[in-house]
Amino acid sequence: MASDIVTRELKQPINLVEYLYRRLHEVGIRSVHGVPGDYNLQALDYLPQCGLSWAGNCNELNAGYAADGYARVKGMAALITTFGVGELSALNAIAGAYSEYVPIVHIVGQPHTASQKDGMLLHHTLGNGDYNVFADMSARISCATARLNDPIDAATLIDNAIRECWIQSRPVYITLPTDMVLKKIEGQRLETPLDLKRKPNDPEKEEYVVNLVLKYLHEAKDPIILVDACAIRHHVLEEVHDLVHKSGLPTFVAPMGKGAVNETHANYGGVYAGDGSNNGVQKRVEQSDLILSIGAIKSDFNTAGFTYRIGQLKSIDFHSSFVRIRYSEYPNINMKGVLRKVIDRLGKLNVGEIPHISNALPEHELDSSDQTITHAWLWPNVGQWLHENDIFITETGTANFGAWETRFPRGVVAINQTLWGSIGYSVGACFGAALAAEELKANQRTVLFVGDGSFQLTAQEVSTMLRKKLKPIM
Amino acid sequence: MASDIVTRELKQPINLVEYLYRRLHEVGIRSVHGVPGDYNLQALDYLPQCGLSWAGNCNELNAGYAADGYARVKGMAALITTFGVGELSALNAIAGAYSEYVPIVHIVGQPHTASQKDGMLLHHTLGNGDYNVFADMSARISCATARLNDPIDAATLIDNAIRECWIQSRPVYITLPTDMVLKKIEGQRLETPLDLKRKPNDPEKEEYVVNLVLKYLHEAKDPIILVDACAIRHHVLEEVHDLVHKSGLPTFVAPMGKGAVNETHANYGGVYAGDGSNNGVQKRVEQSDLILSIGAIKSDFNTAGFTYRIGQLKSIDFHSSFVRIRYSEYPNINMKGVLRKVIDRLGKLNVGEIPHISNALPEHELDSSDQTITHAWLWPNVGQWLHENDIFITETGTANFGAWETRFPRGVVAINQTLWGSIGYSVGACFGAALAAEELKANQRTVLFVGDGSFQLTAQEVSTMLRKKLKPIM
Repeated sequence: MASDIVTRELKQPINLVEYLYRRLHEVGIRSVHGVPGDYNLQALDYLPQCGLSWAGNCNELNAGYAADGYARVKGMAALITTFGVGELSALNAIAGAYSEYVPIVHIVGQPHTASQKDGMLLHHTLGNGDYNVFADMSARISCATARLNDPIDAATLIDNAIRECWIQSRPVYITLPTDMVLKKIEGQRLETPLDLKRKPNDPEKEEYVVNLVLKYLHEAKDPIILVDACAIRHHVLEEVHDLVHKSGLPTFVAPMGKGAVNETHANYGGVYAGDGSNNGVQKRVEQSDLILSIGAIKSDFNTAGFTYRIGQLKSIDFHSSFVRIRYSEYPNINMKGVLRKVIDRLGKLNVGEIPHISNALPEHELDSSDQTITHAWLWPNVGQWLHENDIFITETGTANFGAWETRFPRGVVAINQTLWGSIGYSVGACFGAALAAEELKANQRTVLFVGDGSFQLTAQEVSTMLRKKLKPIM
Repeated sequence: MASDIVTRELKQPINLVEYLYRRLHEVGIRSVHGVPGDYNLQALDYLPQCGLSWAGNCNELNAGYAADGYARVKGMAALITTFGVGELSALNAIAGAYSEYVPIVHIVGQPHTASQKDGMLLHHTLGNGDYNVFADMSARISCATARLNDPIDAATLIDNAIRECWIQSRPVYITLPTDMVLKKIEGQRLETPLDLKRKPNDPEKEEYVVNLVLKYLHEAKDPIILVDACAIRHHVLEEVHDLVHKSGLPTFVAPMGKGAVNETHANYGGVYAGDGSNNGVQKRVEQSDLILSIGAIKSDFNTAGFTYRIGQLKSIDFHSSFVRIRYSEYPNINMKGVLRKVIDRLGKLNVGEIPHISNALPEHELDSSDQTITHAWLWPNVGQWLHENDIFITETGTANFGAWETRFPRGVVAINQTLWGSIGYSVGACFGAALAAEELKANQRTVLFVGDGSFQLTAQEVSTMLRKKLKPIM
């Protein structure tokens, strides 16, 4: 057999599934989410020997949500489901991760490649011999797809998928047919770590953009910084922190950007969301003559129904794949390199006043003898109660909107689905986040705010938290 | 506005959503499954005035399973979800219905057509302005798609979708943007009932096939009948009953065909599933020289791992869209017309012996003093305990395989997913089936066999059964 000849030529033969798992381990994954099924059973047996623990979720949707929560705390997550019935149940969670830029490696155990080739009438199929339909669906909500049908190119496909998952910060889809699990591939390749760095920007182009940014920034009378979700997802928080600190500029966050900056920092001025902004923030932001907008996602909920009043003539937008200065667009340039150079070359800036944001109760609540718990009372109190580095999960709707009125202690990780907004998400995400926090051993609390309506969609995942002896506060 | 001119020309203006609901009512639907979401809320308000009740499921996957169970009892079901987050959670259930030929009308509340056209960054989107991606996914597991973006063709699209749903016995996908809900369309059209009849076969071709079937049947020394799932799904149970009764031939069912024939009938010989057949049945079926196979789905589980030993030279296969006699295929011909003519023209046949199938315990169980509940003891006892017309739901795996060893009383409706096999299905399906049974007021019991592993995937749907005061036996 051809594969035997190849195996003899391998310097350090390793099972395909172990290669895959060791790469997951390399990028920091220690727990794998999912549900067993007969097309992934054999693969699951190899998790422990690769240093990976099986989360064992109650169903695939919950598993997908849990992987999402885990990835938001630990940087990346993995999910294993079975062909058809398993993977489709996870699609909503994967689409959410695609929408919100959360990196999940979704591995699907498939029938034997020969059965697929012959179009056999197996269970978990549509009965029409089409073995591509589910992969086609997932391809629409994945930034890369790796169909491991041949040991020859499996390692390349795996490495590429994990790399894209990290760099694009979005889900990837990997199929693992039962007969591929124990195929031997070259293990020596594992001695070279994955290169997770982005390709550097074209130096001349980057220089051009940096100079233009600095020109407008130094000329501005009242520049401010506005940070949003993609600053977190595309790994520029260090640059954001340095820019905020060195520039001294008033700094605001969009709702999805909460957690991106230290909200106890003197520069922090609150949440800007158009008409939904913190008290006094809307006026302050909209009077600025230059907004450095970092990683914006201007969705309806994130802008309180498209109520931003920031002209494009006053904006510089930093993104993972382009920069826009006023109306001039600079495609194929990543903000990371640009921001670093801007920080390095900052001169004297005009620094305007910064609104004071606190968790103090509004006066009408301080005086009130009413026993009703109001939002105006609750959320500042939550802010006072939160600890540094807490993981603060809020369900879509009331809880998520309420969190805008909470000033975070340093290091709080905020988890919610402001764009995708799938109810029930927060319960699964809570499990994944709590599991990740335990692995990090940083003594972080995991705190969930969810209403009973959303809770019922995914309630059974609480049993997994109990089984894993996790103690999130719900 | 153009639509106003059109409205003035309407003879009996009716809201688009009401037109849709009245068509659902016309085909026998009385309860609609689903979960509310902000793109379907307004549409839900119009259910009661059209004689439809809202099931109000716990989540969309459960709702999809419930719709499936409801359709298997009442003939067709409807499911309403919201764009993106809602519809994707139901995909596994819809794919299952597609795979197993269960007719579900899946209606998805979508954002305003103008928002879609402009590619607005709304919640429940992927954030990339693509409003087609979810519809494209569903199109792969639907036999028809109706995107109601214009009142002009809405009624035609609705009528066509519901018709295809019934005739092909598979899910259809209907999108209902928020601004279309109350658009006026022509209500007079409702005076003409939907034509749910299949196009009759080409008479000459049908005649040719019927004569050939009769020739082989009259020549056969030991013909038998083997009934499978598509006999149920494609509405030929009356023909099957008449054929069994008039021919007097030994009659067997495949596992997915259980419930298709009266198992107390003298002709009934048991379950044939290759090596997984009832005791004595495998030999009996495989010695026959002509098998009239009606509506077969020869999947792995339905054939006990492809262990049929029936040569194609001994087979006549009847299907909804073709007939195959030995190796000769006759496409574009429906079995219904063929079977009726075959019954009408039956002459004298050679009728062989019929195995006796009962719910008697095997001898080693009768004598046993062991307290352990064995499968050999359980399933015949279940058969004795079942009542006429019970709805008997078995989860994939142990329960479903066990049911093969149960001889049904007359009229039992068997519900399971032998082909799709999604665990957790049976709990949702149990709710839908029990709801349908209550509507039919036929005093049918709904009985569910499910293990704790599968139960945890969809357990919360029991709360909906309680809320609806349904009392299935689980």
